[in-house]
Amino acid sequence: MKKDSVNLDNFFKPETVAVIGASRNPNKVGHVVLKNLIEGGFQGDIIPINPNAEEILELKSYTSILAVKKQVDLAIIAVPVEFVLDVTKECKQAGIKDVIILTSGFREVGNAKEEDELRDFMVKSKMRCIGVNCLGVYDAYNKLDTLFIPRYRLRRPGPGGISFVCQSGAIGAAILDIAAEENNKFSKFISYGNATVLDESDYLQMLGEDEHTKVICLYVEGVRDGERFYSTLREVSKKKPIIAIKGGLTQAGSQAVLSHTGALAGTKEVYLGIFKQTGVIYVSSLEEMFALASLIDKGISIPGGNVQVITNGGGYGILSADYIANSNNMQLAQLSSKIITSLRKSFPQSITIHNPLDLLGDATTERYRIALTACLNEENIDSILLVALYQLPLMTEDIVDVIAKAHKQSKKPIIVVSTGGEFTEKISASLEEVGLPVFAFPEAALSSMDKLIWYEQKRKTL
Amino acid sequence: MKKDSVNLDNFFKPETVAVIGASRNPNKVGHVVLKNLIEGGFQGDIIPINPNAEEILELKSYTSILAVKKQVDLAIIAVPVEFVLDVTKECKQAGIKDVIILTSGFREVGNAKEEDELRDFMVKSKMRCIGVNCLGVYDAYNKLDTLFIPRYRLRRPGPGGISFVCQSGAIGAAILDIAAEENNKFSKFISYGNATVLDESDYLQMLGEDEHTKVICLYVEGVRDGERFYSTLREVSKKKPIIAIKGGLTQAGSQAVLSHTGALAGTKEVYLGIFKQTGVIYVSSLEEMFALASLIDKGISIPGGNVQVITNGGGYGILSADYIANSNNMQLAQLSSKIITSLRKSFPQSITIHNPLDLLGDATTERYRIALTACLNEENIDSILLVALYQLPLMTEDIVDVIAKAHKQSKKPIIVVSTGGEFTEKISASLEEVGLPVFAFPEAALSSMDKLIWYEQKRKTL
Repeated sequence: MKKDSVNLDNFFKPETVAVIGASRNPNKVGHVVLKNLIEGGFQGDIIPINPNAEEILELKSYTSILAVKKQVDLAIIAVPVEFVLDVTKECKQAGIKDVIILTSGFREVGNAKEEDELRDFMVKSKMRCIGVNCLGVYDAYNKLDTLFIPRYRLRRPGPGGISFVCQSGAIGAAILDIAAEENNKFSKFISYGNATVLDESDYLQMLGEDEHTKVICLYVEGVRDGERFYSTLREVSKKKPIIAIKGGLTQAGSQAVLSHTGALAGTKEVYLGIFKQTGVIYVSSLEEMFALASLIDKGISIPGGNVQVITNGGGYGILSADYIANSNNMQLAQLSSKIITSLRKSFPQSITIHNPLDLLGDATTERYRIALTACLNEENIDSILLVALYQLPLMTEDIVDVIAKAHKQSKKPIIVVSTGGEFTEKISASLEEVGLPVFAFPEAALSSMDKLIWYEQKRKTL
Repeated sequence: MKKDSVNLDNFFKPETVAVIGASRNPNKVGHVVLKNLIEGGFQGDIIPINPNAEEILELKSYTSILAVKKQVDLAIIAVPVEFVLDVTKECKQAGIKDVIILTSGFREVGNAKEEDELRDFMVKSKMRCIGVNCLGVYDAYNKLDTLFIPRYRLRRPGPGGISFVCQSGAIGAAILDIAAEENNKFSKFISYGNATVLDESDYLQMLGEDEHTKVICLYVEGVRDGERFYSTLREVSKKKPIIAIKGGLTQAGSQAVLSHTGALAGTKEVYLGIFKQTGVIYVSSLEEMFALASLIDKGISIPGGNVQVITNGGGYGILSADYIANSNNMQLAQLSSKIITSLRKSFPQSITIHNPLDLLGDATTERYRIALTACLNEENIDSILLVALYQLPLMTEDIVDVIAKAHKQSKKPIIVVSTGGEFTEKISASLEEVGLPVFAFPEAALSSMDKLIWYEQKRKTL
């Protein structure tokens, strides 16, 4: 069944949300979800449903969704697996079209029949469902938080441009948490588990239209409708970058997929081929996924592969040059005779005017200012890898102003690399505050740059 | 000239050190070195040499090394390049055999003749020299700190088992700093710059004998005596792991090497071949180098490639299985029917007894205890990748005790992976305190494990 793009706004901007299976027991999923909805700052009405409670967390509770008199837009279902179908039928009866089913115990543990029955009912009833066997959604702008994990264990990131579609709940949780810790900013997070009704293609299409989303991260284990997946990736990739990780690319991994989300994993060649053809940036680790997503969220766009390296650490310049020379999409920018002449006049003889440009161990803020100004005005250069090691004695904190000013005045991307402890971290934080991307190691920065350059070239051909 | 192994103790355990070029100006190298020697807690005598000062940093200063009456064991030379040869000759006259020359401005800026003249004098005089154009040495056990970088910019790591031989000063500085921040522990750090007299082979031989050094990290740009390098690597690799990064493996990189340490970089094939044959663990990033070094410093040794994955995040299990299946030296351990039967009895039906072993989103400390106990007793398993995501609601902090106890009672290596923010970091820090290695992402953990397994197999053939 080929589906058109669906409007999923009701899942993220409901006016009234019911939590079916809300509980007074703080250890129950139905309690934590309710608590997070409230503490997350959701502005609409929240209605707990529990057959045995009159009030939960100071909210009036109803014995059944059918007992609620007002229209409910979205139901979050957190009841034991044996009650899910009945509760879903009650939702239908109550005129609720959209549900998020957190409950697990379906296809992933062998109960495919039960899941199919549930799916058939929802499809026939034109109901839409996120889940089953999922963590739910988090929307940083609409302050909607249906995750059943306490906030002290899993910090929620603030509003920004990264969205994450994640088939695995635990991966999603861990990544959201570390992303918040590292000050990455999110729009929407969707954990979708078994993809019983809505699937990855629906979410990708929605995020393609989402005004806040600048970059989409995708962790996927299995895809049922490959044709729709392919065309969706291609369409959405034209608009904004998608960074993907595929779980289960080996036989061992795909066996594990079966007992995780009940999906069929497919072969490595097929997926890598699809990603390449549709302009999806494939990465092999979650760490890399979020380093690159953060770079894109900062608005960094790299129009071509000519990189200029500026450094005060000769070794870092050498390692960067090696990395660039071995990369697929980058090369060291060739300096024009104009810039060589100009820099030659400004710098002492001990500095070789070259790419990488090594400003030497006695580099000062002024040397960085001169180098940056010249390179930003140089047509041959598409981006600048600026290595600044603050251990070196003459480096002063006013380098922040120089780099920030250059970043503000020029569209040319500057990617900063600084390795170090407390002193370094303080300066790096100041740079990040004004929107500059800062990496701890040159290899990680260059790997992200290489992939972004690939995407921007590929995008033109889609 | 083939050299035998040299005893370099005098560089690291001198009784009397002179700083030639000591200065009262806090911005001068000769001031910072003197200050760090004092503040670093060096227990011997420190003698400043400065033609125009009577006292520096409350130490009596001499106008020349020849004016010092007592025997000096080691001279640190930090005078301008044009005075280096004269000062070195004075050292010889004063009976000083060992010098560390921090001064730059030799071969790396085209002054090869001056450097050769200096070298010839030292070789003829049987003097030994670390440098020129270097950052000096740091010894965490002997509290000898000749680095000319203030301690507030570059934190020094505490005593431990990692030693780092680094041709680049700035790389060394940045890495020492971040290593201290991440609580890695060091024995010796040697920045050796142009390798005018002593070279990488000398340092490797010394560290091979150093009782505190468990793992040697090497950043090298160029090697003059390839034959000696080869045989040294082979000899030392038999005793302890060497992890190497080679700067200048591409044409672009090797050009940059020339203006950095004046060395000839050599070709990629030659170096990678040498490393492989001599059992040297080659890594492609500094980040990876220190992740692996830290693992080894914790005493982790992995006797074979059969890995058991235990996780409470299904997705992490799948990604780990994929990584292991694609790796060179690892495979997923096959569980015996005995362990399958035993675990089947202990766990609910929803848990599939498999590798990866997914303890599910409702995993408790007790489930981890059961899984760990069974896997530690299983012969087929050489190491355990223990993924513990603390976001999941039923995870409690007493998991620290369970993992720590298992680690203490069994020799089987347990490598922990936990991704997350504050709550996670607290638990991870507790595990690290009792000696467990903790990684933030499975890919980084498995990459280090794969390389360590390769080394331990290779070592047997050397």
